[in-house]
Amino acid sequence: MKFGFGVDLGGTTVKIACFDENGVMQDKWEIPTRTEDGGAHILPDIARTLQSYCQSHNMEQVIGIGIGVPGAVTDDGVVNRCINLGWGKFNVAKALRDLTGFYVVAGNDATVAALGECRMGGGKGHKNVVMVTLGTGVGGGIVVGGKLILGTNGAGGEIGHMVLNRQETRPCNCGKRGCVEQYCSATGIVRMAKDYLVNTQKESALRGKDFTCKDVFDFAAQGDEVSKEVLEQVYSYLGEFIANICCVVDPEVVVLGGGVSKAGVPLLEGVKRHFARYAYHACRDTEFALATLENDAGVYGAFQMLLDD
Amino acid sequence: MKFGFGVDLGGTTVKIACFDENGVMQDKWEIPTRTEDGGAHILPDIARTLQSYCQSHNMEQVIGIGIGVPGAVTDDGVVNRCINLGWGKFNVAKALRDLTGFYVVAGNDATVAALGECRMGGGKGHKNVVMVTLGTGVGGGIVVGGKLILGTNGAGGEIGHMVLNRQETRPCNCGKRGCVEQYCSATGIVRMAKDYLVNTQKESALRGKDFTCKDVFDFAAQGDEVSKEVLEQVYSYLGEFIANICCVVDPEVVVLGGGVSKAGVPLLEGVKRHFARYAYHACRDTEFALATLENDAGVYGAFQMLLDD
Repeated sequence: MKFGFGVDLGGTTVKIACFDENGVMQDKWEIPTRTEDGGAHILPDIARTLQSYCQSHNMEQVIGIGIGVPGAVTDDGVVNRCINLGWGKFNVAKALRDLTGFYVVAGNDATVAALGECRMGGGKGHKNVVMVTLGTGVGGGIVVGGKLILGTNGAGGEIGHMVLNRQETRPCNCGKRGCVEQYCSATGIVRMAKDYLVNTQKESALRGKDFTCKDVFDFAAQGDEVSKEVLEQVYSYLGEFIANICCVVDPEVVVLGGGVSKAGVPLLEGVKRHFARYAYHACRDTEFALATLENDAGVYGAFQMLLDD
Repeated sequence: MKFGFGVDLGGTTVKIACFDENGVMQDKWEIPTRTEDGGAHILPDIARTLQSYCQSHNMEQVIGIGIGVPGAVTDDGVVNRCINLGWGKFNVAKALRDLTGFYVVAGNDATVAALGECRMGGGKGHKNVVMVTLGTGVGGGIVVGGKLILGTNGAGGEIGHMVLNRQETRPCNCGKRGCVEQYCSATGIVRMAKDYLVNTQKESALRGKDFTCKDVFDFAAQGDEVSKEVLEQVYSYLGEFIANICCVVDPEVVVLGGGVSKAGVPLLEGVKRHFARYAYHACRDTEFALATLENDAGVYGAFQMLLDD
């Protein structure tokens, strides 16, 4: 049996996991990300922990290392500034290969996590998957024929910036107006609830509080009318834009992930209900699933990237 | 040099072309589509003309035949009723193979035409192409990594049924409300112009006439204000929904085809202008091109399908 490693390099910790050649996780651990000295220690630290793991486990047949980094990465493995890490422009894949002697592939962390979730999480067993990541922002990944669509400009799966409301007056973080992210992210949901409170006289548990996105879901579950109405609008937006994505790529399954997806079944059922209204008839039975890998999606995807190469 | 055939089977004529193995067209001709007797003569007629062509050209090395038919086709080549042809359910690929002795692949005509335009027409030289077909309806094709996305339910590229206006009260042909096709097809443009005339006092060359989509473009070119304003709205809708598609698959080039695209450069420039407003910043420089193959897209695509198999 051969083995390989998935590395998810974040601004505070490096998540590392060992997988067998079938993609089954054998072990996982973390080390701190030392960002001092322009991030010069990060790759040597990773190399050291991997070598020590290989020695203590008598590993001989290592496929290589897949690594997800917080920034844009070219096909060759070149990063062009990772601000969180203190890194400038260099070839991260080559540098880690030189340090370990192992074959290395590198990719963007969000893209890699989407691949992991599509292949080994909520999308497991399907070749055509749309991953919708609802977090502080909205991102995603589109897998067709088992491969992630990276796009000509690295913008494949940037579904958070599809236009949902051309009447919007406030700008999105991207500079446009009316993007999905302005309504369906955790911050977007809070903003929509605040706007809603201003425009209604209704009593609500949200009123007068500095509430979070989780509060909106929690209060809705407890029967708070305003929270329920806000979420109904969110589900409608989600159903609409996901139906539009399905007209483009017609996937087998849509996987909902990211922090907002911890709301679970009520979110899933709400989105499905509105999706049915907006979906093209041929796509009406598209499956929906919740993400399952949570914080492990990055290491899973990093290893999967290695299998593709 | 090897040769092969592309066949575009329509309700009134069968278009046929011979290609060399590089996809360069050598010859093309048409025969009538005889729909009498439940369409029983159609395939024998095609077989006869192809055999006669091969004999008169002393062709020995024939790759096979690709055929586009007006209806849904399974991967195996089974059609399930082609109403225009009088056909029921049978394996069209196998039937034509039995008649000719050649290898045969079959696909849906619209899908096949999109493949032809993406590979050999406006999208030539690109691996990632979005084809937008603006005709009586709105259809399309999405090519990623050189392959057409067919979709789980055969609805890949059904971009005419993305929702553009959730306030729409009138139904689309598909049963939903507010689809792209209701605004950006030839019939949609005429309908928008009629609505616009009802809601404005302005003089217009369109007023009191039973005008066509081409009239709207022609009058706009002659300076008719109402026609110009209607088209500006159409360009805005097109720019918006194409920008949304680019957030999903991030293509190198967007190809505009179908009857409406005969409007040419004014359409292209109008769409690009609005696309720039709605596009995610990474996709802002996406190329646009007009379709070039016109009625030959089907035979080109049918032959290309053969090369993939």
